Amino acid sequence: MAKGFTLWFTGLSASGKSTLAERVRDILLERGMNVEVLDGDVVRQNLSKGLGFSKEDRDINIRRIGFVCNLLTRNDVVAIGAAISPYKAIRDENRRLIGRFVVVYCKCDLDTLKERDPKGLYEKALQGEIKNFTGVSDPYEPPENAEVVVDTAKEDIEASVQKIIATLEQMSYIPATDGRGYSEEEEESIKQRLRDLGYI
Amino acid sequence: MAKGFTLWFTGLSASGKSTLAERVRDILLERGMNVEVLDGDVVRQNLSKGLGFSKEDRDINIRRIGFVCNLLTRNDVVAIGAAISPYKAIRDENRRLIGRFVVVYCKCDLDTLKERDPKGLYEKALQGEIKNFTGVSDPYEPPENAEVVVDTAKEDIEASVQKIIATLEQMSYIPATDGRGYSEEEEESIKQRLRDLGYI
Repeated sequence: MAKGFTLWFTGLSASGKSTLAERVRDILLERGMNVEVLDGDVVRQNLSKGLGFSKEDRDINIRRIGFVCNLLTRNDVVAIGAAISPYKAIRDENRRLIGRFVVVYCKCDLDTLKERDPKGLYEKALQGEIKNFTGVSDPYEPPENAEVVVDTAKEDIEASVQKIIATLEQMSYIPATDGRGYSEEEEESIKQRLRDLGYI
Repeated sequence: MAKGFTLWFTGLSASGKSTLAERVRDILLERGMNVEVLDGDVVRQNLSKGLGFSKEDRDINIRRIGFVCNLLTRNDVVAIGAAISPYKAIRDENRRLIGRFVVVYCKCDLDTLKERDPKGLYEKALQGEIKNFTGVSDPYEPPENAEVVVDTAKEDIEASVQKIIATLEQMSYIPATDGRGYSEEEEESIKQRLRDLGYI
């Protein structure tokens, strides 16, 4: 039985993608799985140096992450992609390539992101010092087919993590554990989401 | 126990890297392992489009293959790299990064390569139509620390494959099978090579 799959985090800068990716990675590692996080920043360093932030270069970058996630996934590894990946078409291309593909949309309103702004990037983008900054001067196309939607402005990290793990269990990508326990309300909302998408 | 390792084929164009890589892949797949071949041409398409054949671009390309081989290796996959990889320093950099790293040097004299010339590249390179062609107008630094040396001008494919498999068994990267059986002479020459390198 294939054990690998790709968990794909998409969302604006500072929306919580890397933080959530690392938390989920740790939980899956504890459960004995092979897991690899492909973080947008790390990938730009190792696979995409020289690429910029035009639509074309962003697409190439996201395709490369998808190529590597696919190699890992088909070899029984859980590949976790965490990159802004603003364009729907390329996310869907990766979904078609990989097959076993779960999208987590990290929603967060712009005001909250501007307040967080851990690297001061929103400030610079708003002052025009950074061009092609997603959400400010460059488009972001929210996914309509995300298996999980987390709102990191409203939920705490732990709630978002639990939502993701519960979804992976519901979809049988990872074995269910009784240990954790979700409230009936949480479980019903996850099931409803998966029913809406036609998965269950 | 970690099961992954990287098997790195290096040698001139048409020296037999891809052919041997695919044969070895098939044998390891038959033995139930997870295996992935990263062929130089495929990687240039998927991870390194836009890079040329200057020393700098070649180095970046080989580093990228090493980065992906490392992700696979540390997740229990056998990663097989098959790229000219002419420069010693970058091959050794990948060795240091990955650790579990076995080099196969595909030796072949230039006359034989010119005769083979499946894509007509040597012909073009000799006529100056292709620049930076390794072995003709660009350097190749043979590895001194290759765990396996195959001479594809003198050995047939099956002999080279057996030499590689026997070395992997001797180094305990793959379980030994009795089924195959090497001659005493073959086995002694493999052991001698590994003794010279200080492995056994």
